[in-house]
Amino acid sequence: MPTELAAHASSTPFAGSAPAATAGSGSAPFAGSETAGRLQRVIGDLASELPQLELRVPSVETREYAVDASTRTRLANLDLGPAVAFPVSAEEVQAVVRAAARHGVAVVPRGAGSGLAGGATADQEQLVVSTERLNRIVEVSPLDEVAVVEPGVINADLNRHLEPYGLFYAPDPASWDISSIGGNIATNAGGLRCAKYGVTRESILALDVVLADGSLVHVGHRSIKGVTGLDLVSVFVGSEGILGIVVAATVRLRPVPVARRTVSAFFESTAAGADALSAITRSTVRPSVVELFDSRTLENIDQHTGSTLTARGGALLLIELDGYGIDEQSADLRAALEAVGGLVTEESVEDGEALWELRRSGRGFDPAEWFAGGDIAVPKSRIPEMFAHFPVVEERFGVTIGAVAHAGDGNLHPIVTLRMPEGADPSVVPPQLHDAASALAQFALELGGTVSGEHGIGSSKLDLAALELSDRNRAAQHAIKRALDPAALFNPGKAI
Amino acid sequence: MPTELAAHASSTPFAGSAPAATAGSGSAPFAGSETAGRLQRVIGDLASELPQLELRVPSVETREYAVDASTRTRLANLDLGPAVAFPVSAEEVQAVVRAAARHGVAVVPRGAGSGLAGGATADQEQLVVSTERLNRIVEVSPLDEVAVVEPGVINADLNRHLEPYGLFYAPDPASWDISSIGGNIATNAGGLRCAKYGVTRESILALDVVLADGSLVHVGHRSIKGVTGLDLVSVFVGSEGILGIVVAATVRLRPVPVARRTVSAFFESTAAGADALSAITRSTVRPSVVELFDSRTLENIDQHTGSTLTARGGALLLIELDGYGIDEQSADLRAALEAVGGLVTEESVEDGEALWELRRSGRGFDPAEWFAGGDIAVPKSRIPEMFAHFPVVEERFGVTIGAVAHAGDGNLHPIVTLRMPEGADPSVVPPQLHDAASALAQFALELGGTVSGEHGIGSSKLDLAALELSDRNRAAQHAIKRALDPAALFNPGKAI
Repeated sequence: MPTELAAHASSTPFAGSAPAATAGSGSAPFAGSETAGRLQRVIGDLASELPQLELRVPSVETREYAVDASTRTRLANLDLGPAVAFPVSAEEVQAVVRAAARHGVAVVPRGAGSGLAGGATADQEQLVVSTERLNRIVEVSPLDEVAVVEPGVINADLNRHLEPYGLFYAPDPASWDISSIGGNIATNAGGLRCAKYGVTRESILALDVVLADGSLVHVGHRSIKGVTGLDLVSVFVGSEGILGIVVAATVRLRPVPVARRTVSAFFESTAAGADALSAITRSTVRPSVVELFDSRTLENIDQHTGSTLTARGGALLLIELDGYGIDEQSADLRAALEAVGGLVTEESVEDGEALWELRRSGRGFDPAEWFAGGDIAVPKSRIPEMFAHFPVVEERFGVTIGAVAHAGDGNLHPIVTLRMPEGADPSVVPPQLHDAASALAQFALELGGTVSGEHGIGSSKLDLAALELSDRNRAAQHAIKRALDPAALFNPGKAI
Repeated sequence: MPTELAAHASSTPFAGSAPAATAGSGSAPFAGSETAGRLQRVIGDLASELPQLELRVPSVETREYAVDASTRTRLANLDLGPAVAFPVSAEEVQAVVRAAARHGVAVVPRGAGSGLAGGATADQEQLVVSTERLNRIVEVSPLDEVAVVEPGVINADLNRHLEPYGLFYAPDPASWDISSIGGNIATNAGGLRCAKYGVTRESILALDVVLADGSLVHVGHRSIKGVTGLDLVSVFVGSEGILGIVVAATVRLRPVPVARRTVSAFFESTAAGADALSAITRSTVRPSVVELFDSRTLENIDQHTGSTLTARGGALLLIELDGYGIDEQSADLRAALEAVGGLVTEESVEDGEALWELRRSGRGFDPAEWFAGGDIAVPKSRIPEMFAHFPVVEERFGVTIGAVAHAGDGNLHPIVTLRMPEGADPSVVPPQLHDAASALAQFALELGGTVSGEHGIGSSKLDLAALELSDRNRAAQHAIKRALDPAALFNPGKAI
């Protein structure tokens, strides 16, 4: 789901600081600027202090670490990537941060690089701290219903590890088989099931964090409840790497539900499907997942996978129920949706799995189209208005818009596309893609929503964040940033 | 449930600053100190700026506003209470805060005064800002599943207001018929249902907050999801009035479950009841409420209410199930608890209500006993060890300890009692009560728990908080406090 890609690349060019000359010789490829010299001294210090630490100097090979999943198109324009450290322990993270702080070199924390807002982008004068090797599942306690994990653990790997215990970790971003728990924490990742189980924040009980002075601090508690002092866990969750580096997390687990069932409901149009959401809200059923596919998305999936969804209707609500009384839940849901014109099917296990697979990876991107993604969220009742606004924006900017929505919590992922004229340069993205995505975000704000439901602000959406947050709000955020990272060591220019 | 009362009163005497002489004449009762003079200037400013504002000067009558529910015994030693403002709008709160800031007078935000940690205590040189008159339910949106409320709304009043909508606000502190939403937010209040529905933080989507510079800031969003910038909502929730004054909250609502059922399970001993908790955890049932009453608590309730709980067993698990499939849930729960020796009864609606009423108000306090309360929480699996430690502490300090626990989330409310010798002064509390409560808290920490599960730190538990949090953690908390309230205007000496 590589959203937020092409358009933002055009509006926020990577590496705003002047690129350091061209690639030089192996020993000092980044010589030249004063910043580069400082990075070189950090590398020198670490080589002698931590000879066992895997540390890569800025090179062609480290360019992968300059971008995230939404900014990969920038790779073509890069000569060198950043320096990258791969610590394997909290102590190594502390030593790396201390060395960087000593020489005033910016540190960019990085999880699996699957982010969709440019939160982990880095330039060749910065030091990326990758948490890839901090990937141990330290403990699973079925009776406390917690696990202690390092940040580099992949979300899906944790869930596979939990299967024999009959437990699961609820936050399930669509990227769960490639994204790490640390990255999920950094973005306060959402996903499909959050309407019922909450976002990442609701599943994090405690964190070990390396702060900008290199100190290691434990925040939160292993008990479910705890209110001693300010809620520092929530300060770090969603902070996109600007306040510290998480080196361990105590996460909350839940028992696998006694039953799960997939229900599909097709409607004749996008509008009818969006309107039907309020029928679920008025009912007593609270599904674990409610995904709304609009007409364009169904067409897109059919085109790219050979599925025949559009033959069943013009919009799809794909719903997962779980827990006790699944038949009763299903009957109440069916009654609610049929009353508003839905064609309701209780799917078999196989058909249900096929539909969820289409949800996760069915959408395709035509190489002859430019595209830009979004991550807006609105109050649940305003979803129909949001979809109804797509044609307005399409007409205004001459683009095409389709969306799938985590409708249970009001979070939409619109994709704006524009067909390239014959012979166009794919890397020169016309401004109307970004403008259309921005117009959608502004309309979400008018509806009482937000410009980012779950992907974060990163480096790509600072302009949109400025539309949402008041000056005083932003001043408060910057004050907290300065309080915890006075030298602006961590992930400068991101998130706030 | 007046816990944390007598013992802490002895260790942290109220009004550490020297009391200002004796009560003087009406116009300048607090004349004398420089601080008092500054408060007088605030009162003068507000009288001219906001003639309509109800503002009480320090007097005998305002002594009620000097204490919370846990510190009422201090009233006897007070000559005068604080100044108290009763704003009716955000604008009035802003004006009050600005006037106080201008003259450097400490502001103590206050909800309903039902706190149990001395978080709202104030002295005669401070200005209490009461949110009692900010008590409007501004909006209920069934389709967004949110309500917008002012902070003075009483928790139970909100729930009564929501009944016609088929919705409820989940956080349910035992004090819910006297505590306000604002106070619940200030303490991140828990309650009985949090094991299933989360604590207050999980139900707060957005806040309007008056900051120390008098500005009004909106944080959060009306959508369920939203990750734009740092999570300032969570910074304010649980901050015990040290960062700002909440003037409105957008809270999340949930549909009333299709069914609720009370199940009781009696066990032969406290230890057997505590051990049985893991049988629930190992099952697939997740009750909305799990309360564990130990033997002493059952005896206490029988003595004070004439109930006959002890005839049924030596410990009680009082459980509420809710949602779909209630019979199936109940059968699975019964099987799990009978397998570990429980005498399980599915209670009738009437009997169930009677048992919940005993839970809320059955415990009594003997006027011939000193007592001190606690609010510890431990990881769920450690609850048996916590109860097993009571006799150790009893023997060491010569006291008696009984507890009821929100066992679903590991939160215990032990009450330490000591019989007064003939002719003893009730207000002179022997130190072993506090020492015993402190020993329990320290043991909770050894088990990986916390010194406060839901009541907060306030002014009563700063010593315990210092045992729990590392120096670096506390430094980070103070840095955030300084970032948002550099002049330490709000609620000085509390929480952190």
